[in-house]
Amino acid sequence: MMEALKQIGGEVLRSYEEIGGINHLDGSNLPSRVGVIAILEDYQSLVFPGFTSEEPIQRGEVPYQITETLHRLARNLIMEIGKCICFRTRKASQIGSLCVGDSLWNHQCKKEAEQLALELLTQLPELRRKIHLDVEAAFRGDPAAKSHEEVILSYPGLEAISIHRFAHELWIRNIPLLPRMMSEYIHGKTGIDIHPGATIGESFFIDHGTGVVIGETTIIGKNVKIYQGVTLGALSIKKELSDKKRHPTIEDEVTIYAGATILGGETVIGKGSVIGGNVWITESVPPYSRVYNKPIGYVMAPKG
Amino acid sequence: MMEALKQIGGEVLRSYEEIGGINHLDGSNLPSRVGVIAILEDYQSLVFPGFTSEEPIQRGEVPYQITETLHRLARNLIMEIGKCICFRTRKASQIGSLCVGDSLWNHQCKKEAEQLALELLTQLPELRRKIHLDVEAAFRGDPAAKSHEEVILSYPGLEAISIHRFAHELWIRNIPLLPRMMSEYIHGKTGIDIHPGATIGESFFIDHGTGVVIGETTIIGKNVKIYQGVTLGALSIKKELSDKKRHPTIEDEVTIYAGATILGGETVIGKGSVIGGNVWITESVPPYSRVYNKPIGYVMAPKG
Amino acid sequence: MMEALKQIGGEVLRSYEEIGGINHLDGSNLPSRVGVIAILEDYQSLVFPGFTSEEPIQRGEVPYQITETLHRLARNLIMEIGKCICFRTRKASQIGSLCVGDSLWNHQCKKEAEQLALELLTQLPELRRKIHLDVEAAFRGDPAAKSHEEVILSYPGLEAISIHRFAHELWIRNIPLLPRMMSEYIHGKTGIDIHPGATIGESFFIDHGTGVVIGETTIIGKNVKIYQGVTLGALSIKKELSDKKRHPTIEDEVTIYAGATILGGETVIGKGSVIGGNVWITESVPPYSRVYNKPIGYVMAPKG
Amino acid sequence: MMEALKQIGGEVLRSYEEIGGINHLDGSNLPSRVGVIAILEDYQSLVFPGFTSEEPIQRGEVPYQITETLHRLARNLIMEIGKCICFRTRKASQIGSLCVGDSLWNHQCKKEAEQLALELLTQLPELRRKIHLDVEAAFRGDPAAKSHEEVILSYPGLEAISIHRFAHELWIRNIPLLPRMMSEYIHGKTGIDIHPGATIGESFFIDHGTGVVIGETTIIGKNVKIYQGVTLGALSIKKELSDKKRHPTIEDEVTIYAGATILGGETVIGKGSVIGGNVWITESVPPYSRVYNKPIGYVMAPKG
Amino acid sequence: MMEALKQIGGEVLRSYEEIGGINHLDGSNLPSRVGVIAILEDYQSLVFPGFTSEEPIQRGEVPYQITETLHRLARNLIMEIGKCICFRTRKASQIGSLCVGDSLWNHQCKKEAEQLALELLTQLPELRRKIHLDVEAAFRGDPAAKSHEEVILSYPGLEAISIHRFAHELWIRNIPLLPRMMSEYIHGKTGIDIHPGATIGESFFIDHGTGVVIGETTIIGKNVKIYQGVTLGALSIKKELSDKKRHPTIEDEVTIYAGATILGGETVIGKGSVIGGNVWITESVPPYSRVYNKPIGYVMAPKG
Amino acid sequence: MMEALKQIGGEVLRSYEEIGGINHLDGSNLPSRVGVIAILEDYQSLVFPGFTSEEPIQRGEVPYQITETLHRLARNLIMEIGKCICFRTRKASQIGSLCVGDSLWNHQCKKEAEQLALELLTQLPELRRKIHLDVEAAFRGDPAAKSHEEVILSYPGLEAISIHRFAHELWIRNIPLLPRMMSEYIHGKTGIDIHPGATIGESFFIDHGTGVVIGETTIIGKNVKIYQGVTLGALSIKKELSDKKRHPTIEDEVTIYAGATILGGETVIGKGSVIGGNVWITESVPPYSRVYNKPIGYVMAPKG
Repeated sequence: MMEALKQIGGEVLRSYEEIGGINHLDGSNLPSRVGVIAILEDYQSLVFPGFTSEEPIQRGEVPYQITETLHRLARNLIMEIGKCICFRTRKASQIGSLCVGDSLWNHQCKKEAEQLALELLTQLPELRRKIHLDVEAAFRGDPAAKSHEEVILSYPGLEAISIHRFAHELWIRNIPLLPRMMSEYIHGKTGIDIHPGATIGESFFIDHGTGVVIGETTIIGKNVKIYQGVTLGALSIKKELSDKKRHPTIEDEVTIYAGATILGGETVIGKGSVIGGNVWITESVPPYSRVYNKPIGYVMAPKG
Repeated sequence: MMEALKQIGGEVLRSYEEIGGINHLDGSNLPSRVGVIAILEDYQSLVFPGFTSEEPIQRGEVPYQITETLHRLARNLIMEIGKCICFRTRKASQIGSLCVGDSLWNHQCKKEAEQLALELLTQLPELRRKIHLDVEAAFRGDPAAKSHEEVILSYPGLEAISIHRFAHELWIRNIPLLPRMMSEYIHGKTGIDIHPGATIGESFFIDHGTGVVIGETTIIGKNVKIYQGVTLGALSIKKELSDKKRHPTIEDEVTIYAGATILGGETVIGKGSVIGGNVWITESVPPYSRVYNKPIGYVMAPKG
Repeated sequence: MMEALKQIGGEVLRSYEEIGGINHLDGSNLPSRVGVIAILEDYQSLVFPGFTSEEPIQRGEVPYQITETLHRLARNLIMEIGKCICFRTRKASQIGSLCVGDSLWNHQCKKEAEQLALELLTQLPELRRKIHLDVEAAFRGDPAAKSHEEVILSYPGLEAISIHRFAHELWIRNIPLLPRMMSEYIHGKTGIDIHPGATIGESFFIDHGTGVVIGETTIIGKNVKIYQGVTLGALSIKKELSDKKRHPTIEDEVTIYAGATILGGETVIGKGSVIGGNVWITESVPPYSRVYNKPIGYVMAPKG
Repeated sequence: MMEALKQIGGEVLRSYEEIGGINHLDGSNLPSRVGVIAILEDYQSLVFPGFTSEEPIQRGEVPYQITETLHRLARNLIMEIGKCICFRTRKASQIGSLCVGDSLWNHQCKKEAEQLALELLTQLPELRRKIHLDVEAAFRGDPAAKSHEEVILSYPGLEAISIHRFAHELWIRNIPLLPRMMSEYIHGKTGIDIHPGATIGESFFIDHGTGVVIGETTIIGKNVKIYQGVTLGALSIKKELSDKKRHPTIEDEVTIYAGATILGGETVIGKGSVIGGNVWITESVPPYSRVYNKPIGYVMAPKG
Repeated sequence: MMEALKQIGGEVLRSYEEIGGINHLDGSNLPSRVGVIAILEDYQSLVFPGFTSEEPIQRGEVPYQITETLHRLARNLIMEIGKCICFRTRKASQIGSLCVGDSLWNHQCKKEAEQLALELLTQLPELRRKIHLDVEAAFRGDPAAKSHEEVILSYPGLEAISIHRFAHELWIRNIPLLPRMMSEYIHGKTGIDIHPGATIGESFFIDHGTGVVIGETTIIGKNVKIYQGVTLGALSIKKELSDKKRHPTIEDEVTIYAGATILGGETVIGKGSVIGGNVWITESVPPYSRVYNKPIGYVMAPKG
Repeated sequence: MMEALKQIGGEVLRSYEEIGGINHLDGSNLPSRVGVIAILEDYQSLVFPGFTSEEPIQRGEVPYQITETLHRLARNLIMEIGKCICFRTRKASQIGSLCVGDSLWNHQCKKEAEQLALELLTQLPELRRKIHLDVEAAFRGDPAAKSHEEVILSYPGLEAISIHRFAHELWIRNIPLLPRMMSEYIHGKTGIDIHPGATIGESFFIDHGTGVVIGETTIIGKNVKIYQGVTLGALSIKKELSDKKRHPTIEDEVTIYAGATILGGETVIGKGSVIGGNVWITESVPPYSRVYNKPIGYVMAPKG
């Protein structure tokens, strides 16, 4: 057995030399999953003070905690953003580990990372304002919601949108990998898959949420509400279209019920429309429409 | 950068004063996520002895473990239920942190919490009896299930229903937040979203389960089987209807295939019926019906 | 209260004697969840060197790490496989804890476990080759994918297929429980439920993935692409059919869009076909078909 | 390097076969360090309720915690004591792993372990009474002690004596290994090395404590106080004397200052005596003596 | 057994009612051991930047880390100091849990705690300056020390003095318990027992250190060096003398070799003296003395 | 307060610029405490197989564990040794972070580290042989030792010598810092301070051990036994003598009782001698001497 394992070890090693694309051995860093989670936990504790910690926060402690959390968040953001900028640079220049070997580049990456982290953190009060509206939207939009506290403590849709709003700020600043790792982190936790590229307006509410997919170039207006299993997707999957708008536009005040599928970059769901469950839409719909599947009827027969 | 961070810190602090609904700084406790998980783990180890621990349990140890686990569970339940009763009281009286400042109330909350925890724990043998039937139902209902052990170790539907049966006991005793945090915990793990208010009969089986949604006022009979992506939901989402029955009734022996949607508080699926995949139902169906989508046909064209 | 808890403890204990199927107290081991996760993490670190660890791996360290990881993986595999073989043996012989009491059996289980672990590990380079093709397929198949690194770091479909390929190797060697615990582990993380019995060809891509169900006897060819919510399931759920092929066959180059349902052991989706979203198929489809729901139309009415 | 490591591995393996006494590979358990620490932590939390936990204990919780802790402590004690009895039996019968292979013995060990654990736990209130007196003695005996709480929270001598009193109860019941692991645990923490065989009377106080050694057959009366670096040791170290009393007897009300050494099994320090610092004593001392080194004088010269 | 344990539980509970001084059940907090360690780790990371963390600190990160650490340290200090002030107040007024019930007091404690924490943190640069001199003294004073880094990484005496300097700042501000818990934490780690009340001058070096005891009212000048086992203690242990100076004064430039004992509040070791190993001193010694034991000679006989 | 903290932060930062010797901010690594502990735990588990792990090791697993542990140990050793060589190089060349910036050096350090790690690991069987003799010596030397298992599980002296033998192998290969961190790790645990430079022969036994100090250039023969508080130290502490032999030589078969002090690089304790407790020796002693303090007598007076 020992001999066999030794041989297998040799073959695995050889396979690292032969099969290239899935190794990461050149010593330059990728963003760290642990780092991503640390960033998101600090972000959430700043957005929902007193909700995410195990122990009650005393009012007097708040200023200390904000400063502490903010500086740790800044430090982690600069580190992870820096790695992503290095990665982007290497990809662009088709070279290997330029960033590590060439301290000039490294310095450049860091300076840009600091600038971007600062921009991001400056958004915090605005993000809190928006997320507050999202909580309101969830409370108003679900008869089962008994309190704001319940929404914050137990609505996966709220957790997904609050993290999306943060990841999106990274995305629009041209940071690769990091916002995608954030969106996958929350996808894994909630079953809600929002691409960080999606543009989402205020007071957004996702109920239940499992199976929701919102594509990269989706645009969503204000006061939109969607249910579990809704897909806002692309019609075509040709790689060369990756720069085009491939996903739909949802205008203000639209409601989309469970399982509906809306596809295509030129598809616009007009303001105030209601899209019924399981409806399949690939063309635009004028404002204030109610769209539901024609009753196709079902067969009802005595079992047997 | 340091100066900028200091300014951001100030603005975040200001935003805590201005944006009220999403802070929790008054020092009174909300239920703890860590506490919720501790409770559920102790509950599961009492229900499935020997399955949840890493090391095999010796028969001789069982009485010690039951007593130890039961008292820890009691203590944690009293603590978390107590917080929820305080929360409910404060909400009802529209006052802030009454519970903490006024030791009389506090005492009252605790006494009620103890009473409710005791009621809950008294249900344990009965819950075990029901969950045993659920295991049986899963084994019988899935040809792929090779053993009871496989069902207990690897069926997310079983984990969801066993936790639901516990959370439901809290819900019917008018405890807010805590059962919802339990249902979201298992929703996050399994993709199965059962509101703790739902009433579910014996021998219930959910296969695969991802995307299942079962609403607050749903009533489900005995020997019901449902598949992934089934929604038992509400037709209307008006907040003022939150006290009404908004979700359907599923009678005994019903099977509901993947992706079916059944909506409305007055919708009744009659005993022994079979609901086909993707069927959309908003009206009652008599007993022993087989309901499936009319074959709408599909277009089959040579690709190109 | 103390007296009441004592009584409850006694009743729980009695319920362990009365309700048999959900206890596991005879001292013989079941596979350990912690052990399963340890195995999968070592497997993933061998397949994607440098991607799963927090710190960058230096090239020089690789041979040490391969040997260390491989031997730990071998040891854990032998232990967990051994438990499963013991379990299978006990089930087959309808006896209790034979394996533990009878050292002869125990020896036999271990020897077989070692043999199987070795066979499995010998597959590692081949598994890496296949998973490399899966990464390629994902990168080509999703316009939103910006790099191979993004695919490896943030595509749940890739994580699911890479673990499936490993679990499947256990399944075809007749190991119970362990591969199912692996598939449920990744189902819980990704919402993608692939039964370890499913046979899946090269270059397989699942996009988004939440809600995908792939049944035990499914056969999938090369270059197949499926989207979230796709079910490849069984038509009948009679327990006595559990040895038959109950799930469909998907030939090479097939694409299946979100929410489509394909059922039945004799259903074959012919080579190169495209199955549209939400389509419901229970019969075979010839090669190079494009199958999509007949436009049933929807009602569009001004809201009111 | 890989080849060299392989060879080293082979030689280490060979050395396991050749060098026997320091391997432990026959599968029978020794007491676990983790288990020892778990036992001592539960013991301390029962003795000093509210002092050892991070969070304040509410009065109402106390009965739950006592029951929970007591049953966990009982379970762990039975397990670790059981291993020690098996170990003792194997040593006595000069056979290998009898205990594991022969379920009869195993049963016998367990029954005895249960009996002894029960006897031990029955001592708890009496142990608490004695330790309370030790706290009093420390408070009275040290002018620097400002409160009882300070003594409990920060006097290593108190921690050492409170654990000794528990380990001693195991020792006198003929349990090997376990009490020695307890005494070494606290020796490592405090630098105070009390052999679990030592018999120590009420109201015992060790100040500072580092370097104190109290041998196996020492007998200490009531109200004794000793300082750092005191040795109560043996004169002879002949292995064949191991059953004899080899360490001194210290009668009531004795004080022994820092660095004093008292040796020999027949040496008795009479009641009420005071032994000065650094004194070296190998013969008995009558009651009410003050013993101090004759002033040998020291040389005082201008440095140079 | 279960019945016996129940009875034991009852007796333990009764013993909590009967034996008062070693319970802590009234709900008011004592300082937390975890809190003490958190404070000391943050303190050490501020004093020795880059030495205590696992990963190298980049220069650019330093300002973030200082701010983060400083605010966490401030928050924890205020919390633990606050508990100590409450404790002191309760002791002084001979009342129970005044502080918790009476929010006025509570407020007062907190305000004082904030003030004291601020004073303490203001000392940080000065403490760093002093500890830098201690490092220098250790490097100069030990021929075995190869580098400053070795001193910081592996000299227990340096760790003890650096924590003492911090604890002493709390002591002179009349905070009970907390500085004693700090001194016992480092006593447990190093075997060096420095009472936080001791006044210690610049450039202090303790070599090896195990068994060193430095009493509450000791005064030590500059450039003093002491070895393992040195005691600077009290002559009398009458409780009523606890306000007097009971421990010696060591003037500048004194060296005290291993095992020496110097006792008494009026004992002064004059400037520049050298005290030999094992010397026992209870009276003052003029400046520039060399004090060593008169050679008492030893017996050298052929062994037999 | 916030403003004050900001100012303190600024001053701490300034103090980093002004006070140089105790910062470590240039980005080059020092050995990691966590790394040191990982190395020592792997080393101990190779030396005492089955004693250090919580779960019993099955014989069949041993070859896997050896290979796994050995490769992890090799990898960690290379990493930590490499840092030490870099550190040594930088010190020698009086330059800053040469090693990191200049990849040539880095490569050189690594190659040397690999060579040294290999040499060290090659010693493992020989180290095991020696430690086996140390276990024997402890068992024979202490009448209180009841079994070899007790010695391995609870004798701090054995733990100290087994780690010293490993650290010493690093020391003689001119690795700085790492062996000192190892000796301090075990000094903190046991109170036994053996400088890694000390040369110690076979069958060495330290009983109790607290306060033992063995200096850098000490040479100890075979079958030597020493007790707690023994110092083998230097007479002079002049820094310029650091290359000389400053500590004594102890020949074979010597026993040194508690508290004895033997000083000086030319002091030789002849073969077979016995040194009594507290004896102070600065000159050589011929073979087979019995050395004990002349009875100075003590004063025995009625207390009063």
